[in-house]
Amino acid sequence: MVAYVGYNDPVWSWTLQRYNSREADVLIVGEKINTSRKGIEEAVRKRDAAYIRKVARDQAEAGAHYIDVNAGTFPDEESRHLCWLVETVQREVDLPLSLDSPNPGAISEALSLHKGEPMINSISLEEDRFESLLPVITSHPCRVVALCMARTSMPTTTEERVQVASELIGRLTGAGFPLGKIYVDPLIQPVSVDTRMGAAALGAIGEIMKAFPGVNTICGLSNVSFGLPARNLINRNFLALCISCGLSAVILDPTDRQLTSTLLAVEMLLGRDDYCGNFIDAYQEGRITG
Amino acid sequence: MVAYVGYNDPVWSWTLQRYNSREADVLIVGEKINTSRKGIEEAVRKRDAAYIRKVARDQAEAGAHYIDVNAGTFPDEESRHLCWLVETVQREVDLPLSLDSPNPGAISEALSLHKGEPMINSISLEEDRFESLLPVITSHPCRVVALCMARTSMPTTTEERVQVASELIGRLTGAGFPLGKIYVDPLIQPVSVDTRMGAAALGAIGEIMKAFPGVNTICGLSNVSFGLPARNLINRNFLALCISCGLSAVILDPTDRQLTSTLLAVEMLLGRDDYCGNFIDAYQEGRITG
Repeated sequence: MVAYVGYNDPVWSWTLQRYNSREADVLIVGEKINTSRKGIEEAVRKRDAAYIRKVARDQAEAGAHYIDVNAGTFPDEESRHLCWLVETVQREVDLPLSLDSPNPGAISEALSLHKGEPMINSISLEEDRFESLLPVITSHPCRVVALCMARTSMPTTTEERVQVASELIGRLTGAGFPLGKIYVDPLIQPVSVDTRMGAAALGAIGEIMKAFPGVNTICGLSNVSFGLPARNLINRNFLALCISCGLSAVILDPTDRQLTSTLLAVEMLLGRDDYCGNFIDAYQEGRITG
Repeated sequence: MVAYVGYNDPVWSWTLQRYNSREADVLIVGEKINTSRKGIEEAVRKRDAAYIRKVARDQAEAGAHYIDVNAGTFPDEESRHLCWLVETVQREVDLPLSLDSPNPGAISEALSLHKGEPMINSISLEEDRFESLLPVITSHPCRVVALCMARTSMPTTTEERVQVASELIGRLTGAGFPLGKIYVDPLIQPVSVDTRMGAAALGAIGEIMKAFPGVNTICGLSNVSFGLPARNLINRNFLALCISCGLSAVILDPTDRQLTSTLLAVEMLLGRDDYCGNFIDAYQEGRITG
């Protein structure tokens, strides 16, 4: 392999603009500690800390940068369970968490126990939710997922998503929240329901990264394949497309080698892996599933 | 699944422009009948028609729209072998062929035996090659692959590729060759040699499709992963990225289920598979590898 040449060369400007709207690696949020997943709800109910700690550890070792915790299947006791998860997971891994709840009260209590700078998942334009979460996130260093949910409806087109994102970004930064700590989630909807939903979300990622330099984008993958067979194949390819549109962060199962292999291959193909070093290292460590 | 809504709605314009620069499905050129591949050279030398016909049939049944024939490992007898391949393959399958040679003489002889409208692979700006092939392709209905090879060098950046493409398109259409029958090949180079080569080719596909509405783009996949491990994984993800940039046609092994599954998943995710029908049909017929 020949020497790597930097991106300062002006003839590479197009490529640079298109594919390098962010500098860092794609940030991985490990999604497994969610009480809607088999095993987790029972472990939370029984206070099986060993089980939760193992799931946290496995995700950390597989490369997660944040560990998501979600106790949404316990509407009446969400706050108590979320707090237990924060303490249990942070006793095991030295990582920040993604506090995943639509409930500002639960977020606020979990936040008070959290060590370091968490990600709050999520704020949106739904009233009450925005107004009650805003003081929480502006009074504590954190990153925030800004979900492209409009006041009363789900967006359908790229344009609607960009519009909602624009309003969310405007209100958050207007309140002093740093642009670089906002992660816009374009809201992934199933292509089985409307075949335009994949392209609409991909378009939104690209447009948002272009329109608001410095902001981040994030999404989960599995909604896109809802109702279809061969979901892993679809999710994997959707990940490839999202990354090519400039996605900064992704919520996924980092222990899924097919997904992380896709991530590494795509980053390399887009010119973001100097000397192909990350990919080759991962291959030599047995982390690539061909 | 709810009713499919057409693309005429203006709010979908962005998506439409970005992902629907072509109307038709991705055109598949089956690459297996190439004397550089194991088994093929021997079959050609021994005139083993049964073997060649089976490889042709398998590719046709797997969905190839064109069957590539290449006898490039026989520099002194290329023309004779290419002609035999044309007759042998077209005796078996009712498909047009891609006549794959840099040699205008061999192309011309093979073309005279070909039934239907072949694809000529390829013309380029290398002198002699352009001048001697031009009268051949303008005197016979055909499609042509226009390879982004400059007169004396390989292009490196997106901009250089677009420049060469522009000159090729200008000279071909200036000579009366129809724009819609030109397939620009951006020339895929290994990311192991220069990590920017993937993005440069992807950028070229997108820019060429945007700059010359009605033109087509085509490429092979495997060069991109030259020198790296897990090449199938890399090639598959490169295919996904190429399609998302608007690639019209691809040269691949159509019997590779992982590649064709990727193609179907990506087309669906980009909103080009009404009701997800092609994907679901393929799954039900056992053609999807998850």
